[in-house]
Amino acid sequence: MQRIAVDMDGVLSDTVEQFIAWEYRENGIKRTIDELMGKPELEVFPNSKKYLHTKDFFRTTSVIKDSQEILERLNKKYQVFIVSAATEFPQSLTEKQAWLNEYFPFITWQQMVFCGSKEIIQADIMIDDHFKNLNGFNGELSILFTQPHNAHADNGRHRRVHSWEEIGVLLL
Amino acid sequence: MQRIAVDMDGVLSDTVEQFIAWEYRENGIKRTIDELMGKPELEVFPNSKKYLHTKDFFRTTSVIKDSQEILERLNKKYQVFIVSAATEFPQSLTEKQAWLNEYFPFITWQQMVFCGSKEIIQADIMIDDHFKNLNGFNGELSILFTQPHNAHADNGRHRRVHSWEEIGVLLL
Repeated sequence: MQRIAVDMDGVLSDTVEQFIAWEYRENGIKRTIDELMGKPELEVFPNSKKYLHTKDFFRTTSVIKDSQEILERLNKKYQVFIVSAATEFPQSLTEKQAWLNEYFPFITWQQMVFCGSKEIIQADIMIDDHFKNLNGFNGELSILFTQPHNAHADNGRHRRVHSWEEIGVLLL
Repeated sequence: MQRIAVDMDGVLSDTVEQFIAWEYRENGIKRTIDELMGKPELEVFPNSKKYLHTKDFFRTTSVIKDSQEILERLNKKYQVFIVSAATEFPQSLTEKQAWLNEYFPFITWQQMVFCGSKEIIQADIMIDDHFKNLNGFNGELSILFTQPHNAHADNGRHRRVHSWEEIGVLLL
């Protein structure tokens, strides 16, 4: 059975929507998706680092469309691990686990990895929205999940998908 | 640079001493190390599962002798990751990170992995006190750190060490 390592932020959880909402609440500026295209989140949301260290940021993000249904089906066909860079934000650890338990109850504690660098991850397939994670991956298929920050970048090494529906077509 | 995956409980942190202390406090029975030899901790400490789910159990364990000094030296020669099975006990996540920050300040958040199954870990060397973690490891050297629960077991597949001093001799 092939092993898939699935990222959380920007792949399962809609951090962009959360950034937009928190920035609007903080200073009344409402960013549109168009304004975010091709720009690092740190640049567009000057307070983003602060949010990432704030209680409830991760716990209250919404779920990316179709991810629950498709991941549940992948979980029957593959050995699925959720691999999230979380140790930079210590308060996120228990929030991320509680969030997974709520929205992805079919994912057991054995299948969760909260880490810093993803270099140490061994899998056949990795799904992530960050080049820094995919570039160091040495499995057979690396899938770049489109998010505004990576929309204009391409190093030719990863398979880009724009939705979970597309992941389903590719892997199921 | 070779990568080492180092376990926490029973390798860096003295969980056995902690079990003995908590059991004594709970019911007045003081186990000796001799009584623990070759027995699963769940058998010797009937309340151990409860302790593992209790606040402060992981945060207040003491550090295993020589681990700080030897690991700091290993950290200069190898790519060190601390890999701890933690997601079974969600409250342990932030406690384990705080504990590492206190006693192993040279370990950065990038080098920490809190997971369930360790199957997904890719390294050259793994140091652990549990066969279940070492048996699934496919790196070149798996090191079994002696603890009472594994004292009488041997499947011939791992290099047994009894102390961090011995790890230093082996790897430095």
